[in-house]
Amino acid sequence: MKKFTSVSDVKNLQEIIKKALHIKADPLTETEKGKGKTIGLVFLNSSLRTRLSSQIAAQNLGLNVLTLNAAQEAWNLEFADGAVMNGDTVEHIKDAIEVLNQYCDIIAVRCFAGMKSKEDDVNESILSQFEKHAKVPVVSLESATRHPLQSLADCITITENWKKVHKPKVVLTWAPHIKPIAHAVGNSFAEWMQEMDVELVITNPEGYDLDKNFTKDVKVIHDQEEALKDADFIYVKNWSSFDDYAAMPEVKGDWMLTNEKLAHTNDAKVMHCLPVRRNVELSDEVMDGDHSIIYQQAKNRIFSAQAVFSEILNELNAG
Amino acid sequence: MKKFTSVSDVKNLQEIIKKALHIKADPLTETEKGKGKTIGLVFLNSSLRTRLSSQIAAQNLGLNVLTLNAAQEAWNLEFADGAVMNGDTVEHIKDAIEVLNQYCDIIAVRCFAGMKSKEDDVNESILSQFEKHAKVPVVSLESATRHPLQSLADCITITENWKKVHKPKVVLTWAPHIKPIAHAVGNSFAEWMQEMDVELVITNPEGYDLDKNFTKDVKVIHDQEEALKDADFIYVKNWSSFDDYAAMPEVKGDWMLTNEKLAHTNDAKVMHCLPVRRNVELSDEVMDGDHSIIYQQAKNRIFSAQAVFSEILNELNAG
Amino acid sequence: MKKFTSVSDVKNLQEIIKKALHIKADPLTETEKGKGKTIGLVFLNSSLRTRLSSQIAAQNLGLNVLTLNAAQEAWNLEFADGAVMNGDTVEHIKDAIEVLNQYCDIIAVRCFAGMKSKEDDVNESILSQFEKHAKVPVVSLESATRHPLQSLADCITITENWKKVHKPKVVLTWAPHIKPIAHAVGNSFAEWMQEMDVELVITNPEGYDLDKNFTKDVKVIHDQEEALKDADFIYVKNWSSFDDYAAMPEVKGDWMLTNEKLAHTNDAKVMHCLPVRRNVELSDEVMDGDHSIIYQQAKNRIFSAQAVFSEILNELNAG
Repeated sequence: MKKFTSVSDVKNLQEIIKKALHIKADPLTETEKGKGKTIGLVFLNSSLRTRLSSQIAAQNLGLNVLTLNAAQEAWNLEFADGAVMNGDTVEHIKDAIEVLNQYCDIIAVRCFAGMKSKEDDVNESILSQFEKHAKVPVVSLESATRHPLQSLADCITITENWKKVHKPKVVLTWAPHIKPIAHAVGNSFAEWMQEMDVELVITNPEGYDLDKNFTKDVKVIHDQEEALKDADFIYVKNWSSFDDYAAMPEVKGDWMLTNEKLAHTNDAKVMHCLPVRRNVELSDEVMDGDHSIIYQQAKNRIFSAQAVFSEILNELNAG
Repeated sequence: MKKFTSVSDVKNLQEIIKKALHIKADPLTETEKGKGKTIGLVFLNSSLRTRLSSQIAAQNLGLNVLTLNAAQEAWNLEFADGAVMNGDTVEHIKDAIEVLNQYCDIIAVRCFAGMKSKEDDVNESILSQFEKHAKVPVVSLESATRHPLQSLADCITITENWKKVHKPKVVLTWAPHIKPIAHAVGNSFAEWMQEMDVELVITNPEGYDLDKNFTKDVKVIHDQEEALKDADFIYVKNWSSFDDYAAMPEVKGDWMLTNEKLAHTNDAKVMHCLPVRRNVELSDEVMDGDHSIIYQQAKNRIFSAQAVFSEILNELNAG
Repeated sequence: MKKFTSVSDVKNLQEIIKKALHIKADPLTETEKGKGKTIGLVFLNSSLRTRLSSQIAAQNLGLNVLTLNAAQEAWNLEFADGAVMNGDTVEHIKDAIEVLNQYCDIIAVRCFAGMKSKEDDVNESILSQFEKHAKVPVVSLESATRHPLQSLADCITITENWKKVHKPKVVLTWAPHIKPIAHAVGNSFAEWMQEMDVELVITNPEGYDLDKNFTKDVKVIHDQEEALKDADFIYVKNWSSFDDYAAMPEVKGDWMLTNEKLAHTNDAKVMHCLPVRRNVELSDEVMDGDHSIIYQQAKNRIFSAQAVFSEILNELNAG
């Protein structure tokens, strides 16, 4: 694997899921693989699960880990090409990346959507600079439009939780929130589920349809109750409007996931990438109940990252 | 040892002090003990000594260390059970802990008293959530009411500095400060000293008596001069009022520890947990003088932590 | 090597450059040298290159690394001797250093000039406290008046890029900026180049001459065009006025380095310590062009640090 920023970087999804499950069974079989190599974990935004799981995964592979909280620990970054840097920005992202090239064998970066310019976000204004200027493999720790390490962990989790022969019905449901939230997790989940052997349905209020470039022909239902019927897995996530970018059009009805709503499903497992706003996105009873496989999902972030780093190290060690 | 949040988690205090002194003599005898295991050091508050000494201790035991400055690096935490999270908080502490369960073999946490609600602080509103939700051993890096790793280091330091046969007189003296300070170090020192073979006396201004649940039958003297007489060890620490919670009732006289006051002691050694406000809590001459064993105390924080982590690893490795 | 805060700590500059180049060729030949020893990297200011390159260098030597962002992670520091600490400062730098003595085998510290008091900065008000109170070797990660790890990396980079027999002409040129910037890099570069077999020229606008204590008899030319003529290396750096301390006297003409200016040089290589303000200090075309060896310089920060740490470990391991 040469880089990992979307599902298209995965040659064989079932293979990497299998690999991740092997790693989960025995995480310390490749402790020498990353010896003498360095991964830089660059955070332009907050992180708990991604931060810790990436560190564990890298350490399990014997990699040196450099964690950089760019905004707080280094310099205020300029992102505009050709900028005359006579303002608040101290270092151009290009130069920061070129320096990371000198120090790291793998560069992993978290760069959320700014939620101000649709064009900037859709074009991945930050990640694209990493993809352009990095001379070593780039791993996305969530970018403006995708969160692939999360999605891989989601695939692992669904695989672990589905032993029946028929395709599971997987419902990605919009959930309420109080602020305009990015589309990365929703987009990414939609994209990866289309590569899985599942029946994917998306449900969200009118005005909240995700970018068609990610959802393609997936059925979108604006009636949550109808969508949840017979669901085997429910993925809960908020996002703001894509069409009217980052707006929060008025929503009719109550979209918070509750036990009452779960009653109409096929004993569905509930998933969420975390952090979750309890009693806004989903109720305490769901979060703390038997249907939730949310913490298992969080744990699988380790094996998702470790599988990816391991694949990249294969490439580096062969190169 | 299954957890470490107060002296009651220590089966045999003299044994663990002895163990810590062995570690001090040779810190690298158990470098394989923590192999493949991970300790999470979660800081909800500032830290210098605790941060560094815990890292060193963990590394000496071969543990992977994940340090998380929760507020700056992760998400704004919600602490209230049942909260409808439609405000500033992004992740519930319960969920953060459940995720740490997935990633860590030991969770160590610093969660100071908020100094706003006596009830919250007395009930350890944050640490109690860790104790309730953690599925792995919890270590306190100072909580609302106790600082046990400090107290163990204090016991180690007193042991190192007392070779006579009679019981040393140990005086915990209140010191001036400019802000309302928590009771954790005072409480904890009182609690641990009652398990040591010492004569403990506490001295503080009227209105500043510590919580009786910690001081029990220890003699409290409101006249500092009288209390310090014949002291062998003086432990300097400020705290605010406990009765009138977090208030700073007016204090008569000068409570700063000076060389002049030391003259009336039995050549007493001076202790402080640091950080210390020089020329407010104690004078430069005391801090920089021969009586101070304060930096030795700081060094012993390594061996206190290492002894505790090692005991916990014994339990984990046996389990 | 007993400490590393200026060029005067280097016994033989050519030897250490040679050593660094050997390390660059094979960075992992001394992975056991620092085993069981700890380096504390203390940052009182922002850092990208220094932070990452020092960590890599230390890890390559098997050292444990403790990174402390002092302001954000620990306590607000007091620097004044004898201060009555009844204000905002919580811990005296002296005490922080004494504690670091207990925890670290090497203390590395970044402490920029405050740019408020010329006297404080010239006297290295912070670094001098480390030099006075540290009982273990001190390494400067840039102080008020010097940036020696950068300068050593600069010497390595010039050595790598000069194969001719005649002395290269090295021009340190002032560059525009929008804020009063410290003199450390300029001073340090001047100081180290005087120990190298080069012809050093400094060019800056009138009113911007560096401290004579660093530049000594080096020729200073106030006409950039004249200075750049036949240059083999150009080192671009801004600094504020030294005489009228931290002022920014009006500057005539355009001092930004451009390709047009490069045309009058001897095909000069361009250097900069980074971060750089593009299109203010130098143009995009220079930064992204073939003359720049700026990223190579950044990479050499690893080997500069590793050579220094290795020399210090020699001393510690012998001691």
